[in-house]
Amino acid sequence: MTGNGVLSNDFYEDSANAHAVSENGVNLNAVHLISAQPSVSPTKLKSRRQRWNVRPSEMSKNTLNPIRAIVDGMKLTPNPHKSMIALSIGDPTVFGNLPTSESVLQAMKDAIDSHKYNGYAPSVGYQKSREAVANFYSQPGAPLEAKDVVLTSGCSQAIELAISALCNPGDNILVPCPGFSLYKTMAVSMGIHVKLYNLLPEKSWETDLQQLESLIDDKTTCLIMNNPSNPCGSVFTKTHLCNILSVASRHCIPILADEIYGDMVFPDCEFHSLAPLTRDVPILSCGGLAKRWLVPGWRMGWILIHDRNNVFGPEIREALVRLSQRILGACTVVQGALESILNSTPAEFYQNTISFLKSNSEICFYELSTIPGLTPVMPSGAILMVCICRLVTEESVFCLPATAFEYPNFFRIVVTVPEEMLLEACGRIKEFCVHHYRHLSQGSNDLDQ
Amino acid sequence: MTGNGVLSNDFYEDSANAHAVSENGVNLNAVHLISAQPSVSPTKLKSRRQRWNVRPSEMSKNTLNPIRAIVDGMKLTPNPHKSMIALSIGDPTVFGNLPTSESVLQAMKDAIDSHKYNGYAPSVGYQKSREAVANFYSQPGAPLEAKDVVLTSGCSQAIELAISALCNPGDNILVPCPGFSLYKTMAVSMGIHVKLYNLLPEKSWETDLQQLESLIDDKTTCLIMNNPSNPCGSVFTKTHLCNILSVASRHCIPILADEIYGDMVFPDCEFHSLAPLTRDVPILSCGGLAKRWLVPGWRMGWILIHDRNNVFGPEIREALVRLSQRILGACTVVQGALESILNSTPAEFYQNTISFLKSNSEICFYELSTIPGLTPVMPSGAILMVCICRLVTEESVFCLPATAFEYPNFFRIVVTVPEEMLLEACGRIKEFCVHHYRHLSQGSNDLDQ
Repeated sequence: MTGNGVLSNDFYEDSANAHAVSENGVNLNAVHLISAQPSVSPTKLKSRRQRWNVRPSEMSKNTLNPIRAIVDGMKLTPNPHKSMIALSIGDPTVFGNLPTSESVLQAMKDAIDSHKYNGYAPSVGYQKSREAVANFYSQPGAPLEAKDVVLTSGCSQAIELAISALCNPGDNILVPCPGFSLYKTMAVSMGIHVKLYNLLPEKSWETDLQQLESLIDDKTTCLIMNNPSNPCGSVFTKTHLCNILSVASRHCIPILADEIYGDMVFPDCEFHSLAPLTRDVPILSCGGLAKRWLVPGWRMGWILIHDRNNVFGPEIREALVRLSQRILGACTVVQGALESILNSTPAEFYQNTISFLKSNSEICFYELSTIPGLTPVMPSGAILMVCICRLVTEESVFCLPATAFEYPNFFRIVVTVPEEMLLEACGRIKEFCVHHYRHLSQGSNDLDQ
Repeated sequence: MTGNGVLSNDFYEDSANAHAVSENGVNLNAVHLISAQPSVSPTKLKSRRQRWNVRPSEMSKNTLNPIRAIVDGMKLTPNPHKSMIALSIGDPTVFGNLPTSESVLQAMKDAIDSHKYNGYAPSVGYQKSREAVANFYSQPGAPLEAKDVVLTSGCSQAIELAISALCNPGDNILVPCPGFSLYKTMAVSMGIHVKLYNLLPEKSWETDLQQLESLIDDKTTCLIMNNPSNPCGSVFTKTHLCNILSVASRHCIPILADEIYGDMVFPDCEFHSLAPLTRDVPILSCGGLAKRWLVPGWRMGWILIHDRNNVFGPEIREALVRLSQRILGACTVVQGALESILNSTPAEFYQNTISFLKSNSEICFYELSTIPGLTPVMPSGAILMVCICRLVTEESVFCLPATAFEYPNFFRIVVTVPEEMLLEACGRIKEFCVHHYRHLSQGSNDLDQ
């Protein structure tokens, strides 16, 4: 074939100019230019590559999700004489003991039978489904309308959209430590710097406000807070939330509030969502069906836009809409079921989940408290943080090492497993610790290898 | 409160160092450092912002999806005396005349009733579902196993992952013109340059191979081809596909093959997937349930990795896995239903869809051929490209202007509407053209305003 490598590529990149099309549909410019160029042998093309050399992009190399890498890629071999107990991933469904409500499943089947939810939805979700979410989460101090809701493919996409709407490469965001790893995964892959602020275990994992404030500079474009906390299982008081808001207000930093565990707190504790506590700080509150309705695989999440001071203006809303148009949002069947899921799930379902989690937490806390070398922190929500690893190879108990949350020497226990399995796991953890704690007290340091 | 703005932020950014934790869980380093600093009034902090100024990110500003912007944001007011007919979006479900198969819906309900598909799936999808896709698309010349399949949230996410695995900012990709706008949307938002190669209407929309080859330079990291073509409705011959592969092979460029319309071709025509036709060019073939199974809202897509020459090696596969861990993939209920959807949908369902589309295409082509000023191009698949705009305000017929496909002066018609509605639409288009074509022949140029 005859090449034409001397053609200016710039010309073709401007489609508005390149595609003057005649009435019979021939691209006149292109034909004209190609025939006007001398033919060049393809071997002379400067562009020709001599061999295959396909490399993964920098962004893909910078995308590291430690929880997923650990869970999807676990290569340790459990002890063949002990059945595996996974206390690692925040998936309440794996043991079948915490099923979602039958009414939630019925809502899905109704949505399927209606034949109305098979086509494309608007990229931010059906108006009716957004309305249902707005009504469900509207509060006197923080009213919501459909226009304030963006439906997403899981809370993960909500977090992705929020960060990518607010931050440019080179900016930095404030991220809790220990904290959910996805914030860092997203930020680093986008060239956004992560500054970790400390949660203090001795203060029930409250934020170290002084240290938080010290991290803020003129490139800080977002403060991420997570309440109730994953992995700490802690729930902030109203006063503490107001203190965090004061920092954001003083420095004019918008907040991404990850409230996916909202309302999943024990009866002696109250969850306060952040938005009603401020009039000036704009908040993107991220949530979804995953935890409270026990269907994390369905990938139904949302962003609630709280902006009573009109700081975001139309621009940030438009940014979220544009970003949602990349891959569109959640599965339409789940969207179709959403109104019924939110409004018709019986109250006992929520209560039963909480009772089970509280009872399991207490059992786990009690059992682990008796073990030498472990310091569990009693949670107010579904997760328990304890101090260690190497449990898998010897005891076939798999917890998530808190290195995934930037917090070495701790591990996270998800207390959604059946009670007898939890007791068995605690027994094995005890056996392990009794065996190894001696080494540690004798100065050996091989526990966190 | 007392600030401590003189602390080095760099210190806190290195969590491995910052979080030496004592046995009682207190972060010693942080406490030590904070107490060691003199207190500074917060008004002295260099970082303090005086006012709110939250701007949308550059990436969000660079994310422009013209189809979605047109469809979601259409502000034109249809003629109130004529009911709206939308021939614009590639959604076969909106009129209810092209429902998916009952067996597909039953597969979903079975998946729900099994209670097995509510938890998290691996980020690339359930092994069993990936296996089902691999078996369905395996061919003698291009075998597939589960490990060659990545399930995604719709074909859009498949395209996003493929581009972001292969390309860095500053690279360029080759994109068909006219072509599906999402390629450009994704690329531009990631800082990847788009070079448009021409499809030639006078050659049944085949690729201008010479011009395609002329665009390649040493920053070209991906060739996107789309067959059957959206918006052209054309289907490439085996010979033409081999010619495209030759170009890719000569210059060692991997191919992203968008084959979402695969197998949706009229009986007198044959669809060839690209992978079996090459032994050396690595191919990421993107597809999904949307078109063939008529459920675009369910967001079930996939990437099929064809790499018989082992050019991608483990690195590109790992890149795709890592990228899939950002937001996880498709809704687990649809994943659970996938095996049954692929294997148990009756053959008549596919045939009926094709027959309907062919019949509607012929009607539409015939009707439009008789209209002065229009030049329809007969398709081999579900879409028809014709030459114009301003139909909405006068005739309440909404077609998608092909500016969305970088192809001004054309419009795309999706022939999935009921026949009587299509005839009505053709009648209105005719009325419009008869009225306006006179202006055009008289030298007025107001048609594409």
